[in-house]
This record gives sequence, structure tokens and C-alpha cells, in this order.
Amino acid sequence: MKTSLTDFAVFGGRPTFAAPLRVSPPACPDWNKTEVQLRGIFERRYFANHGPLVSKLDAQFAVYTGRKHAISVVNDGLALMILAKGLDLQGEVIVPALCRSGVFDALRWAGLMPVPCDVESDTGLMSTSSIRKLITPRTSAILGVHLWGRACAPVDLPTLSEETRLPLLFDATHGVAIRHAGKSLGSFGQAAFFSFQEGEMLDCAEGACIVTDDELLANKLRTIKNFHPGHTFAPVPLRINGKMSEAQAALALVGLDELQHNSDDNMERARAYAEGLTAIPGVRILSGMESPQIIVDIDPIDFGLERNALFNLLEKENLYAQKFSSDPIQNAAGVKNAFGLAQRIVQLPCHPGMTKEDIDKVCLLLRTIAVHSARISQRMEAKP
Amino acid sequence: MKTSLTDFAVFGGRPTFAAPLRVSPPACPDWNKTEVQLRGIFERRYFANHGPLVSKLDAQFAVYTGRKHAISVVNDGLALMILAKGLDLQGEVIVPALCRSGVFDALRWAGLMPVPCDVESDTGLMSTSSIRKLITPRTSAILGVHLWGRACAPVDLPTLSEETRLPLLFDATHGVAIRHAGKSLGSFGQAAFFSFQEGEMLDCAEGACIVTDDELLANKLRTIKNFHPGHTFAPVPLRINGKMSEAQAALALVGLDELQHNSDDNMERARAYAEGLTAIPGVRILSGMESPQIIVDIDPIDFGLERNALFNLLEKENLYAQKFSSDPIQNAAGVKNAFGLAQRIVQLPCHPGMTKEDIDKVCLLLRTIAVHSARISQRMEAKP
Repeated sequence: MKTSLTDFAVFGGRPTFAAPLRVSPPACPDWNKTEVQLRGIFERRYFANHGPLVSKLDAQFAVYTGRKHAISVVNDGLALMILAKGLDLQGEVIVPALCRSGVFDALRWAGLMPVPCDVESDTGLMSTSSIRKLITPRTSAILGVHLWGRACAPVDLPTLSEETRLPLLFDATHGVAIRHAGKSLGSFGQAAFFSFQEGEMLDCAEGACIVTDDELLANKLRTIKNFHPGHTFAPVPLRINGKMSEAQAALALVGLDELQHNSDDNMERARAYAEGLTAIPGVRILSGMESPQIIVDIDPIDFGLERNALFNLLEKENLYAQKFSSDPIQNAAGVKNAFGLAQRIVQLPCHPGMTKEDIDKVCLLLRTIAVHSARISQRMEAKP
Repeated sequence: MKTSLTDFAVFGGRPTFAAPLRVSPPACPDWNKTEVQLRGIFERRYFANHGPLVSKLDAQFAVYTGRKHAISVVNDGLALMILAKGLDLQGEVIVPALCRSGVFDALRWAGLMPVPCDVESDTGLMSTSSIRKLITPRTSAILGVHLWGRACAPVDLPTLSEETRLPLLFDATHGVAIRHAGKSLGSFGQAAFFSFQEGEMLDCAEGACIVTDDELLANKLRTIKNFHPGHTFAPVPLRINGKMSEAQAALALVGLDELQHNSDDNMERARAYAEGLTAIPGVRILSGMESPQIIVDIDPIDFGLERNALFNLLEKENLYAQKFSSDPIQNAAGVKNAFGLAQRIVQLPCHPGMTKEDIDKVCLLLRTIAVHSARISQRMEAKP
């Protein structure tokens, strides 16, 4: 344990971790099971359109989320683009200011104007009161984002949607294994989509899935995601090559099979973090226990160091955390909470390659930094 | 051999093929080589962004096409969307009326208006004289399409582009293995893109690659195809998740390795078709010898049967040809040649699962139909 300032790597001490510890995927499908599936694709010589594995995945995923229809697509950006065209949205869509830049861009590709809505500073989630202020005659839909394993207003938002008759969509990218009040995060809104990309609990080397109970919408989505004129299930304004390949579906099926196990495993690590970070001044875990990502809010006053200074200090200890980009809302007005949070949060490594001891070391490091933060800050500023 | 009308399956005869013969991929990567690559991905636990296999593919493909830069992306629709944003095109783009509907849709996703240009009736390709008539102040680019293994005006189009200062892009989706005057089909225009999708000589379960000599454009394309704020190589108007996964790159690397062999193999089959279809009245092969697709133009007068009637007749013989969709130009004006050709062409099966005898049987069947076409036509019309 570090007891004096010079024990910290930034001041010449030995790094806490001998090898770099990075943010890494929380799960990876078993190779042997995957190989069996992939061999089958090669034997069938059928790689792409509406193949048997994609159909199987759609059927299994509909059951898993308790929705009538599941439509697998190539990634979550295209899921949102396809969904926007499926609903033939025009004009503005209200989105939380604290979300991945891909959400803003996907809406723009679909010819829509994303309107960033500020979030609650304690959760990072939108509330209906902030949304109400942004509704205009140009508003065509509300996109809720279930962030870091927490449901975004799963009762209030549907009520607001009914009241305003605005379609309600949910981005549940990080929530494939997560339940709220016993229901899948995909259960809420007219449609929702999950990501199966790197960093999620189910990773099929890029991939996503849209779920809905609306049969006409499902048929439109199935038509839009495939540009082959032969595969038309409903009239649509525009199509795209957004289909999931059989190889992605193979990985996703293996991942779905292992999902509960991997999620339980992940929760063990989240518990270790929750225990280890208890009562460190200025350190607060924002992510839910089932989240595939450990997101920590660093209060610069209480912790005694700004997030960026902490970030640099951790890097010297061979601990590579990740920041959150506030690029998409750089010039947006009225999103103070979101912008503030984006400057404070870090994602800590949490993956199957880490032991309980690794997590304890991360937490102890943060605790030790908190104890010495005033002097560290002083000395870091004094350094050339 | 069929000698009387009742020998044809449509009139109760025995089908020419015992099992269905379908249009199928012209190549499929070797499983054992693919397995080695895929195992590597699982060992590295690195599936997606700017991975080592994608980098290797980009480097090898730039050399293969003789271009300075190659940028792999997820599919050819997104290749065109990304290219349009990379050049920041606005307004209209002139495209051949005879091309896949995906081209029209991709341009629309990029906020552009595709302007269909009629094609030459003998080749299916655009000529500069038809393009000139469509150039207006709103024209922002010309998209040439190298169709069915033939280069689209590879000398005239660059000259027109220089003269008009309109950017010239080439869709070389079907032409990965094809050379024109000793150069890759990717050599022409400011940028070109190839498809690695099902049906092409290199098939990586969806995939595409853009090639260009323009370094700034290449950096923009690399930025646009990846929505991660960390990977920014040049300022761009919009980004998308359009990256190729490591798994796709694994298949593509194996496919690139086998490309010459598979292409030679394919040419053997094309030669067998060229011989077998010689001097059948009203039957003309439109595709080049290196084309992954055998495209045949059926002249209804000289052949004695309309394409659709022939199509139905072939199906009864267990020979499943493919039509060409004219949906995107259904209501377009001034595209008479393209529309006419779309009603006349069929794609015949041509894949490694077929023997020389299979191809001879297909050709003999077409020859026999031509001989009896008048009586077949009469009897088909008489049937209820």
C-alpha cells in the first residue's frame, strides 16, 4: 500500500499494476460453441440474408425480452436509423444530452434533428419535467436512454408518451441482461433496441436487436434492414443494408446462451467495486449492479482532485480508465447537468480477466488517492 | 435431350435437373484457413475497432488495387453513404438507371437526390453523352457503375469529370477480381468501392472496401466509418458505425488469398457458358468473362419467348435463374434502354458446386427451348 507521495507512480513510485489494466469486454462467447455454429454456416454456404441463425436469434430474443417481435440488425447506430424510418419520423427527436455521439449522428442520417435534453445530476437520466420544456409542434418522438444499467423513467415516460401521443423509443444498448421490476429493459416504449457490440454483456462482433409488439412496425423494420427487393414485408420510405450476418447471429446465439452466467459473474465484480468504493469521499458509483460498465462520478471538491488529474494519475499506475465524450453537446444550451457530469465520470475496468484482488487494488488505490488528494494536487500542479 | 414438347417439365416432362440448381455464391473461403484467423480473434479478445486484421486487409487491398488507401467498411451501401459524406456532397448525383436499388437508397440516406441516367442498350453501361444531358447546377457528382465485369467508360468518364470538375466515383461492387487494360477496376475515378458480399468473388459475409489515392479523403472516410470520438483523423460532417469487424476481415483476408484461384475457376465456367450459348438466336451474354455473375439478355423476338415465360419454364426444369429489379426506375423518365434491359435479362447459376456438364445442360436446355420456342409459347398461352 502506498503511504507516502513518492509511492505514487506519477511521482516515481512503482505502478500499482505490473501490466496495463484496461477497460475490456465484459464477456466473450465460448470459442468451442462458436466454432460449431460457424462450421454450420460454411457447410450451408449461406452467409447473409434472412438465414436460419438470424431467424433463430430473432425468435429466441423475442422470448427473452417478452416482446412479440425481435429484429436483429448489424449495429445499434443502424438500429436507430432503421427505427426512425420505420416510424417515418420527421422533424425533431428529444434525446438525453448525456449519451453516445452515435445517437445524435444516427438521427441526423435519418434526416432528423436531435434535441438534447438535460439530465438529472444524480442519475444521468432524463426526467419528464425536462422533456416537457422541449416539446414543440416539430417534435416527432422521444428517445429515452437506459443508461449504465438503470431504467430511464420507465413509468413516467410511457405516461407522457400517451398524453402527448408522441412515439416513445428506448435505447437499451447497455441493457441486454438487465431487468427492471422483473421485466426486460426492452419492455418499455413502442420499440427498444439493444446493442451486441464490444463492451456489452452480449457481444457478437457488432450487432444489435430491435424489439417491439407492433406487428406492422416489425414488418417495416424487416423490410428496411434489407435492400433486396424480394424481401418486402410492408411498404417503407427507404431501405438500407442493415442486416445482421449469419456469423454475427452465431456469436449472438452462443452469447445469449451464456448471458445469465456472464451477467452473474459481472455482478460479482460490481459487488466487489460497490464494497471497495464505499465511503470514499467524492466517489460515487453511478452504474447499476447489473451494468456491464462500472461508471464512477468523481466530485472534484470532495475527492480533492479533478477527474482529468485522477485519470492521468491512474494511467501512471497502469490503470487505464475511460472518459465520457461531451463532444455532441459541446455547443448545446440548457444541458448544464449533462455537461457537468460528462466532465466528472470515469469508467473503470471490469471484465472476466480481472480477479477480486485486482478490483480490491483499484479501490484501495482510489481510497489512498482520496486520503492524499490535497498534497497530490499541490505536487502535480507544481510539477513542470 | 428433349425432342418433343412433352419432354419439357412445364408440359409434364422430367425436369432437366434432379435437384434445384440455384444462383449461388461464386466463392466461399476455406474453412480451415478461416478457423485459424477466427481463433486468433478469440485469443486477442478483440472484435471490432481498427483491429489488426482490418488494418492488414486495408494494407493488402491497397496494394492489390494499386491505390494509396483502402478503407474497409461493413457493406457497399454504407460505403457509398460514407463516401458521399466524405466528399460532403449536396444536391444531385448522376447514377446509371440500371443498377441495384441499394445505390439509390444509399444516396438518399446521405441526403442526396439520385438522378437516373439511361444506359446503352448493348452494354447496360452509361455513356458520357447521356450524362451530359443531365448535368445541372445542382449536380454534385457522377457515380459510374462497372456492371457485370465490364468497365463503365473508364477513359471518357474521367475526361468528363476533369472538364466539368464534378467528382467521379465508381461503384465497382462486382469487380473485385477484375482488371481493365491491366489495371484494377478500383483504379478509376476519385474513389471507387468494391463489395465483399454474397454473390461476389470475395465474400466475407457482408463487407466492402473503398479505395482512393486522396489522403485527406481517406482520413475523412476512416473517421466517418467509426463513431468513436477517439478515432478522429480529419473533420467530418457526420459519422456512422460503418466499420468492418475483425471477423469479416478474417474472411476477407482468406478470400483475398484465394481470389486469383477462385477467379480463374470462375472464368472456366464463364468460358463454358460462352461456348454453350454461342449462336442461340436471341440469347446474348452481357457479362464479361471475369464477372462473378452470368448475365444473359433474352431478345423476346429472336428467342421467341419473353424473359418471364422463359423464367417460369426454367423453374419447372429445376433451374432457378434470377431476374433484375427495375423497381427503382419504375416511374423515372428518359430511361427507356435501362427499363427495357431490366425486363430482358436473367442471371444464370454459376458457382463452384456446378460441373462443366451442368453448364452444358443449362446451355443445351436454352438451345432446345429456342428451337421449339414458337410452339412452346403457343402451348403455354393455351394452358389455363
